Amino acid sequence: MTSAELAQKYGLVRNSGEKLLLVVLDGLGGMSHPITGLTELETAYTPTMDLLAAQGACGLIDPIKRGLVPGSGLAHLSLFGYDTFKYPIGRGSIAAYGIGFDMQDSDVAVRVNFCTAAEDGTITDRRAGRIPTDTCRALCERLDTITLSGNIDVFVKPVREHRAVVIFRGSGLTAEAKDTDPGAVGSKPLPLWDDAGGSRPPIVQAAEEFQNKAWQILKEQNPANAVVMRGFATKPKLPSMNNCYGLNAACIAVYPDYKGICRMVGMEIVDVKGETIADEFKTLAAVWKDHDFVFLHVKKTDSYGEDGDFDAKVGVIEDADRVLAQAMDLSPDVMVVTGDHSTPAQMASHSAHPVPILYWGQWVRPDLVEHFGETECGVGSLGRFDGSAMMLEALAYTGRLDKFGA
Amino acid sequence: MTSAELAQKYGLVRNSGEKLLLVVLDGLGGMSHPITGLTELETAYTPTMDLLAAQGACGLIDPIKRGLVPGSGLAHLSLFGYDTFKYPIGRGSIAAYGIGFDMQDSDVAVRVNFCTAAEDGTITDRRAGRIPTDTCRALCERLDTITLSGNIDVFVKPVREHRAVVIFRGSGLTAEAKDTDPGAVGSKPLPLWDDAGGSRPPIVQAAEEFQNKAWQILKEQNPANAVVMRGFATKPKLPSMNNCYGLNAACIAVYPDYKGICRMVGMEIVDVKGETIADEFKTLAAVWKDHDFVFLHVKKTDSYGEDGDFDAKVGVIEDADRVLAQAMDLSPDVMVVTGDHSTPAQMASHSAHPVPILYWGQWVRPDLVEHFGETECGVGSLGRFDGSAMMLEALAYTGRLDKFGA
Repeated sequence: MTSAELAQKYGLVRNSGEKLLLVVLDGLGGMSHPITGLTELETAYTPTMDLLAAQGACGLIDPIKRGLVPGSGLAHLSLFGYDTFKYPIGRGSIAAYGIGFDMQDSDVAVRVNFCTAAEDGTITDRRAGRIPTDTCRALCERLDTITLSGNIDVFVKPVREHRAVVIFRGSGLTAEAKDTDPGAVGSKPLPLWDDAGGSRPPIVQAAEEFQNKAWQILKEQNPANAVVMRGFATKPKLPSMNNCYGLNAACIAVYPDYKGICRMVGMEIVDVKGETIADEFKTLAAVWKDHDFVFLHVKKTDSYGEDGDFDAKVGVIEDADRVLAQAMDLSPDVMVVTGDHSTPAQMASHSAHPVPILYWGQWVRPDLVEHFGETECGVGSLGRFDGSAMMLEALAYTGRLDKFGA
Repeated sequence: MTSAELAQKYGLVRNSGEKLLLVVLDGLGGMSHPITGLTELETAYTPTMDLLAAQGACGLIDPIKRGLVPGSGLAHLSLFGYDTFKYPIGRGSIAAYGIGFDMQDSDVAVRVNFCTAAEDGTITDRRAGRIPTDTCRALCERLDTITLSGNIDVFVKPVREHRAVVIFRGSGLTAEAKDTDPGAVGSKPLPLWDDAGGSRPPIVQAAEEFQNKAWQILKEQNPANAVVMRGFATKPKLPSMNNCYGLNAACIAVYPDYKGICRMVGMEIVDVKGETIADEFKTLAAVWKDHDFVFLHVKKTDSYGEDGDFDAKVGVIEDADRVLAQAMDLSPDVMVVTGDHSTPAQMASHSAHPVPILYWGQWVRPDLVEHFGETECGVGSLGRFDGSAMMLEALAYTGRLDKFGA
């Protein structure tokens, strides 16, 4: 059982009043540099993380399960202590929650990407040159005028750059439709339904009608003259973190998908003015006193990892380290620093490598690890464990867990 | 969920074209020598394994589950990523598959041992002096003439030395009959059925009739004048490795039981000319280019462990190390070296000790382990884990896994 299941099923939590700060550096884990033998984290100058590691306890997590290459959404859900096999959250609902759309039980959401298509329908740019968010908003307003047959409502909302979300509302809708995003340029959109798979469900009819009308409306646009869809999803039904852990929880994140996951588990989504780690820290300082648990998300470690930029990823880790030093001035009782998966710059993609993690707090028993890095964490006293077990242990160190059993 | 279940249920695999070599040294794990404090593996001179360990990552596996003393068949099934609690494969079906017998849905297979019995039926040698395989074959041909009442067919096939397999075929057959092999000399064969257990199922009638007729036919033979049976089993139904992992898999093994397990999961069983590790390596070199995944099995580590011969087990590990050096010339993308259980020479039996494992490959992140051995593996970054999780992680390092979730 995961942290959320154990805490909730056995009613283990109590309110000690102690506070927990969880800092997730997206894609933190890396690979050894071929010359130095050091990973991005080991290369970075991180006096604060090293102090936390030396005073605290370290280990390696498999964010979801050993061997899996985690997607960020499910990896965060797992870090929050939820069973990702029981709650297979789809991309569409993450996007809808990410923009604060109030999904209803009969809704099906899907992520839509504006893209560029040739005259014959072949996709030539899957991101339409990463159009500005303002352009995305204007295009969404036009698509939002589409009406569908069969008593189905449709809502089209901008997310960020070329990303949007479409919500279909009507009775009998399911998430059965397939992604039309071919995942690569040079192909036409994929079919929404394998016609050998029996009669077409209403969501397939609706999505097809929407996609056809959207292409019609967009056809004179440049570069965003088409859309593709991925991740049809119904409304997720997750118990809240407050319900499971008795935590008044807040999310500090810049990217919408992370806000989406956090909103699904009932966190308060705090508005961040700006996009830098320093901006996030200012927000943290402002809301810290009002919450038992704050999750602070640093995105750029993953972005630079995906770009294959080792040095830039090192730089973001160093930025985060400075913010952690300031965060210590807020006197959190327990801090957890980790990642949601590895994104080694050398692979320029998510990977299955286990991710370093540290616990720090008055009641965390120190181990032999002196520096926060993959290699040393490999011999830390936390061992290697699934990310979904972290919350319970962190709660224990904040004095928030009752004894289990007599 | 095990590797096979995760990979198949979530359709995670893709074909990166990268190749995986799995080398299993049967019964690899050992105990510290009372004088040197070193295990068999730690005593052996293993420059190649040490190189792989230093460049790769190490840990300890519980082949099936912590604390269990694994049988070799199920331990291999677990290493291949299958849930051995869901597929409790019996000895009879392993033997039938091992000789390539085409089991049908209505078949029940059982392992038969030729043995020596005194006039009153007491077993005096459970292996009939390990009769040569040729003798076994001749005796099986005689027993294969037995006919049974009740519309049940019976097939008697030689395996190796004193070992044979009998397959009963007929409608309504189950694997309910009990082993007649008393497991020790000085006892008579055990009953096939506890008569307090209700009415006798057809397999009990058939097996009893077969055993009686076999003793009758063999009674003038010396030393193999009797048979006992163990491991009644129906046809196993396992998804293939190709189905689960998309792997074109081959098995290189000398002993029939290992071929049996491999055939059950759909591997190609490659014929090995000869019985030495060097012969196995020649076979590997010949078939490597045609497969994505090759499993190479080294038996004698276990045999000498069972014999209590510490030095001979060390010697086999050194032989295997030389073959591993040659295997590296085939440029596998990922190599995994481990055992299916421990067989410490000092215990002269299988044991529950966890087994050293190493991963090596371009994307395996090195840890602090410099030498392949039980003690150093105990602080490796792979930690301690169940063997059924290995395949997924190994596939991840061959670039064969898609991201899990959005």
